[in-house]
Amino acid sequence: MNNYAVNQFSTTGTLYLSAPEAALLVRKVGLEVSLRSIAANIREDFSRWPDFDKSARVASHSEFGVIELMPVSDDHRYAFKYVNGHPRNTGLGLSTVMAFGVYADVDTGSPLLLSELTITTALRTAAMSALAAQSLARPDSRVMALIGNGAQSEFQALAFKYLVGIDTLRLYDVDPDATAKLVANLRPFGLAIVMCGSAAEAARGADIITTVTADKTQAIILTPDMVEPGVHINAVGGDCPGKTELHADILTRANVFVEYAPQSRIEGEIQQMPADFAVTELWQVFTGQAAARTSATEVTVFDSVGFALEDFSALRFMYDSAEAHGFGQRIALIPSLDDPKDLFSTVAVMQDEAVTC
Amino acid sequence: MNNYAVNQFSTTGTLYLSAPEAALLVRKVGLEVSLRSIAANIREDFSRWPDFDKSARVASHSEFGVIELMPVSDDHRYAFKYVNGHPRNTGLGLSTVMAFGVYADVDTGSPLLLSELTITTALRTAAMSALAAQSLARPDSRVMALIGNGAQSEFQALAFKYLVGIDTLRLYDVDPDATAKLVANLRPFGLAIVMCGSAAEAARGADIITTVTADKTQAIILTPDMVEPGVHINAVGGDCPGKTELHADILTRANVFVEYAPQSRIEGEIQQMPADFAVTELWQVFTGQAAARTSATEVTVFDSVGFALEDFSALRFMYDSAEAHGFGQRIALIPSLDDPKDLFSTVAVMQDEAVTC
Repeated sequence: MNNYAVNQFSTTGTLYLSAPEAALLVRKVGLEVSLRSIAANIREDFSRWPDFDKSARVASHSEFGVIELMPVSDDHRYAFKYVNGHPRNTGLGLSTVMAFGVYADVDTGSPLLLSELTITTALRTAAMSALAAQSLARPDSRVMALIGNGAQSEFQALAFKYLVGIDTLRLYDVDPDATAKLVANLRPFGLAIVMCGSAAEAARGADIITTVTADKTQAIILTPDMVEPGVHINAVGGDCPGKTELHADILTRANVFVEYAPQSRIEGEIQQMPADFAVTELWQVFTGQAAARTSATEVTVFDSVGFALEDFSALRFMYDSAEAHGFGQRIALIPSLDDPKDLFSTVAVMQDEAVTC
Repeated sequence: MNNYAVNQFSTTGTLYLSAPEAALLVRKVGLEVSLRSIAANIREDFSRWPDFDKSARVASHSEFGVIELMPVSDDHRYAFKYVNGHPRNTGLGLSTVMAFGVYADVDTGSPLLLSELTITTALRTAAMSALAAQSLARPDSRVMALIGNGAQSEFQALAFKYLVGIDTLRLYDVDPDATAKLVANLRPFGLAIVMCGSAAEAARGADIITTVTADKTQAIILTPDMVEPGVHINAVGGDCPGKTELHADILTRANVFVEYAPQSRIEGEIQQMPADFAVTELWQVFTGQAAARTSATEVTVFDSVGFALEDFSALRFMYDSAEAHGFGQRIALIPSLDDPKDLFSTVAVMQDEAVTC
């Protein structure tokens, strides 16, 4: 390598947070503080909803999955996430969902942070679910059914323990190994755990039912007979066209809450419903413009699909935390030029330079 | 730092090419070969136009500029570019245009390459312009007016020297320092250079007129009286809503070619024209489905805005070249997990672990 050439650059300083570094940062800050802080950021950002330039994600569907870009911005910061969804990936030793993203300065377009978002997405999805449940579940909720025990299940379990006060989990997954992994991972956290033989058994007596299954199909994980009065359903797994978890009759009889209706009508459980099916956007609940749960007996549903603003809030947390604790490294993603009009000098070969690397 | 924690990860191996490394790679391969190879890739990819999932870019406009995401994919590879446009950035010591992007595997969603695209965008824009001119300019074209002598001008000049046979440049910029920089940078390349006092003077006697100015305004750089019969106009600078360079009457009288009509009607010179204004997409020229120039006297216009497929072609070149020459480094943008369903283990604090970094 010709080090002379590389050293003629400095960097405008995009902070890079790899997956291992992001994980270490979460361990340094603490999982509970991370979940609480991301939830607080989400609540803060959702509460100034009209400030954001919002759009439905841009999805590229293919035979085995989907790749999406999710941008969002306010007057100050811009963020986007790249995320895939490939259910058969686990059979190849890869994650179903892999993500990364960027947090940028609106006034100059400079990328401030490039971060892994695979781990961060699991955290923000769980934080969003727990934040919704704080408003939508009965305040005395202590027992949660957790149906689907894959990569996101621990995050959901702990967010509900820390932010909602859940003390008992009723677990079910079609794959017993997934449940065994979840049980082992949760051992240090002092939750009472009941392993169940079916989704119906898991749902029995639960105050909250979380569905977080992975198949890219029109599945019916929950039917109306499994849903007792007063239950809050946290429906996380149905999040793209053709992928749902709830029987339509559950939605008809419930009070349904979403992140961003235009996106949820395409991707969420409510893709099964008519275009005018009544839903409430959660930002309206957080700002007091709409009611949350109205009785101890109604069934509430958070039809979670994951909205770009949650990634914005999570990237904000990761950026602030990395800066505060000195994590990440500066990378030269953008050339730094003495004269911004002289980009060419970066590729010009000097007369006395032999490029021999 | 707790190295034990970081080392428990391996990486799925996203190749990272920084701006300095990309520049060094171009110097290693050679500027001429790089421009020719990118042009060949663009021609190849445009020639199988129907294979690609195309969409207009997603733009986020703000007070001082715009941030855009430009995705495109075929059945095999997915690419996107992040790019800004902030004209006042040069006054802050930053580039007007900064970019990076990713080249990914469609079957799994895995990001294969994360690359700078600031330098690469300048290369691909110039390669696209020269490729279009190979079909659209008169074959005996030797003299090019180059109006706008900023960051992209050297790339345009050299692409037209190497791919079109231009031997004489007529230069003009409102900023004489920009022209002086261009002249200095081009000195080793054996081009005859004429410095001109106005755009009109630069255009006089030129076979090809390239406009590559930066202001984000409805400018009129060229008027009909400056355009002689038989000229090819390579209009590069007008590339977003409200930003044009040509008088509308030039377009009315010319044979106009574009990359992707739905995007060009929003962003290109033809934003000034009615929605049914006749244009030809260049892929149709490359495949022989449409005629290029039809006489030695007609005026042709390439209304360049920059389409995502060109970045796909350029990322393909950078990826193949980096692999061939051993450039770039592997980064852990995505966590690599022994059990893909066990994402939680990355953030779980071990019983005997003290996180003290």
